[in-house]
Amino acid sequence: MRPNLSPDLELANRLFDTLQTKTFDGIGITREAYGPGERLAHEIVRAEAETLGLEIAIDAAGNMLMTLPGADRAAKRVVIGSHLDSVPQGGNFDGAAGVIAGMAAVAGMQRAGFVPARDITVLAIRAEEAGAWFPSSYPGSFSALGRLPPAVLEVKRLDNGRTLAEHMREQGFDPVAVASGASLLQPEDLAAYVELHIEQGPVLDALEIPVGIVTGIPGSRRLRFGRVHGEYNHSGGTPRRFRRDAGIALAELAVKLDDCWARLDASGHRLVVTFCVLATAPEAGFTKVPGEAAFQLDVRSVDLKSVDLVFAELERLVPEIEARRGVRFELGLETSSRPSPMDTQVRAGLLAASTALGVRHIEMASGGGHDAAAFAQSGVPSGMVFVRNQNGSHNPYEAMRMEDFAMGAAVVQRFAQEFAA
Amino acid sequence: MRPNLSPDLELANRLFDTLQTKTFDGIGITREAYGPGERLAHEIVRAEAETLGLEIAIDAAGNMLMTLPGADRAAKRVVIGSHLDSVPQGGNFDGAAGVIAGMAAVAGMQRAGFVPARDITVLAIRAEEAGAWFPSSYPGSFSALGRLPPAVLEVKRLDNGRTLAEHMREQGFDPVAVASGASLLQPEDLAAYVELHIEQGPVLDALEIPVGIVTGIPGSRRLRFGRVHGEYNHSGGTPRRFRRDAGIALAELAVKLDDCWARLDASGHRLVVTFCVLATAPEAGFTKVPGEAAFQLDVRSVDLKSVDLVFAELERLVPEIEARRGVRFELGLETSSRPSPMDTQVRAGLLAASTALGVRHIEMASGGGHDAAAFAQSGVPSGMVFVRNQNGSHNPYEAMRMEDFAMGAAVVQRFAQEFAA
Repeated sequence: MRPNLSPDLELANRLFDTLQTKTFDGIGITREAYGPGERLAHEIVRAEAETLGLEIAIDAAGNMLMTLPGADRAAKRVVIGSHLDSVPQGGNFDGAAGVIAGMAAVAGMQRAGFVPARDITVLAIRAEEAGAWFPSSYPGSFSALGRLPPAVLEVKRLDNGRTLAEHMREQGFDPVAVASGASLLQPEDLAAYVELHIEQGPVLDALEIPVGIVTGIPGSRRLRFGRVHGEYNHSGGTPRRFRRDAGIALAELAVKLDDCWARLDASGHRLVVTFCVLATAPEAGFTKVPGEAAFQLDVRSVDLKSVDLVFAELERLVPEIEARRGVRFELGLETSSRPSPMDTQVRAGLLAASTALGVRHIEMASGGGHDAAAFAQSGVPSGMVFVRNQNGSHNPYEAMRMEDFAMGAAVVQRFAQEFAA
Repeated sequence: MRPNLSPDLELANRLFDTLQTKTFDGIGITREAYGPGERLAHEIVRAEAETLGLEIAIDAAGNMLMTLPGADRAAKRVVIGSHLDSVPQGGNFDGAAGVIAGMAAVAGMQRAGFVPARDITVLAIRAEEAGAWFPSSYPGSFSALGRLPPAVLEVKRLDNGRTLAEHMREQGFDPVAVASGASLLQPEDLAAYVELHIEQGPVLDALEIPVGIVTGIPGSRRLRFGRVHGEYNHSGGTPRRFRRDAGIALAELAVKLDDCWARLDASGHRLVVTFCVLATAPEAGFTKVPGEAAFQLDVRSVDLKSVDLVFAELERLVPEIEARRGVRFELGLETSSRPSPMDTQVRAGLLAASTALGVRHIEMASGGGHDAAAFAQSGVPSGMVFVRNQNGSHNPYEAMRMEDFAMGAAVVQRFAQEFAA
């Protein structure tokens, strides 16, 4: 006997509005990881959880568990989670939408008098926006599972140079306990982790489809500190054969890797290749041949073999361009992450929920990284629901429509209802 | 009866040393056009001219004429000139070497008791480094000839936004008189203008030749304010077909124009094509597709037809790249200058002087612009002598050898001796 549930959209609207108002920075939304904006967001969500009477627990890293108890308290639980921090001057939906979807789902269950067979925990995760604050991978999620490598506690916040541990302590949490692996969740105690998130790209909007069921989160190979060393010379007085032009050497590398991407794309590989930064040095200026340039390269795919093909081309091109143009490339530290395929059964459950609800959807790979990657990598059966969003993410113009959110939240709720049965 | 002359190298060494010491900025040499550094340089040179007993006159724009009187004061004079300003943190030789060569030449004549048939004027010119201070073409030289377009007096210094006229007035000169065309020299009163300058490129050094006789000064077409407008997007979440990547669009334009240059170069065209700046906007950063980029393009040749071929390719490429990559190029204001061929007779005179002195030399086009262009464009028979120099120019590492300077100055002196006969 399955009751007809729906998410509590009044609650969702109220939470979105309050978060928008309270964490508006004058231009966009700022909820600093382990800073005042994130703290405020947790307080706002906690107040709703208290009103709902959910069981509230905070772990040593400040992640907040808000649990709707199930009939069998000892059974593996279903977690619906996402993060509440944001990039500086970001938008209101990236992260928060997933937590609010969980809240709306369990509130809708309560409203209908539905008691799930097992606990359903809404998880408000800390510090997902690693690129903006602490350069590390999902410190909140890994802490929630007791699996944060202690060294990560020593990474420094990008803007102020103080460590993650210091910021945790300042917010009243316990980095020593985090380092020892203390946590309220263990991977083996979770039946599933599911996360709703705005799509950070334009695919759903272009296809006019409200919901995407995620097949996997890409792995990556990244060069953030690339440089090209040439020689500054007079742009009028230096004939072609005497030049060591760092700018044009970098441009050539970028265009040839872009050509490589186009060929891979045409032959069915699914990957992205981005020179996020591609720039002659600030010292460059008129009447000078550029002597220095810098770049950041981001290559991602759910299939690391595609990424490796691009790096193989990079390794072939670099010495060739160096020899021909008299420059030297310094690739700098490479960082990488492995892909996180979503769990087959969770994907099937999310697809079934969408179909049952008549929600139009496609399957698609994620472009960006998400907390779900940390859960998947820790062995938790994990899945994600993308909601169509206009204007990208990480900017004040994120523009998810509430009717699309309602469909995504309904899919998550239906999934939890079935999976927790 | 031709006396054996030689330049006064003691005087030259003394002037170079004093200029180096007094206008050293801690890193390089700074002699701001119409600022304290240039003023100091003029004072230093003036003191030597007074010691030599040369006739000194300052025109309304602050150019300094230091004249060794000839036998016939009414005859057309020979001018040996160059500029005393420098770029910020530049080197000691760019500009000053030409003035000092003139001083050493006339001092050597005096020492030998040689009285030229006509006046020989050493001209210390103001504000040649237009790219560094006042974006205009040779305001000092054109003022010296009474031919500065009055509008140029309103151009603003790049770093402080104040006009050329204000800076002139501040240094005690008379922009109103300059605007009215008042000057101490008229083009028709000059028999020749000759300028010694360090080569700003590496050609003489690579060929192991101390002296170059310049065939002409290139014309140019320049884009200093180029921009590319695309769209910032998530680098993970934005598939290839949805991108409007300003960085890669600019890289493609640069590489294709560089290819065009390589083809022209191989088929005998002599030109230079430089993206002096080629850069994603400062807002670019990791996990973003670059939405904005900027560039500065400098194309030069003694033959403007070669320059026009590059711009024709640019105009063909821009709409093609725009359509394919979904970006918009904004070329911004184009500035241009016409080539200034050196005078056939002056060139022949300089070649003859080099040969007579046994100075190894080649003929070569200038890469950069020089005051000689303003004189040539005003109808004065003009020529230039390049002196081999290591490490380029416009930087603290300019490294002209004094024995090379001595050869270049001897060529100038011999030329003046003959041409003033």
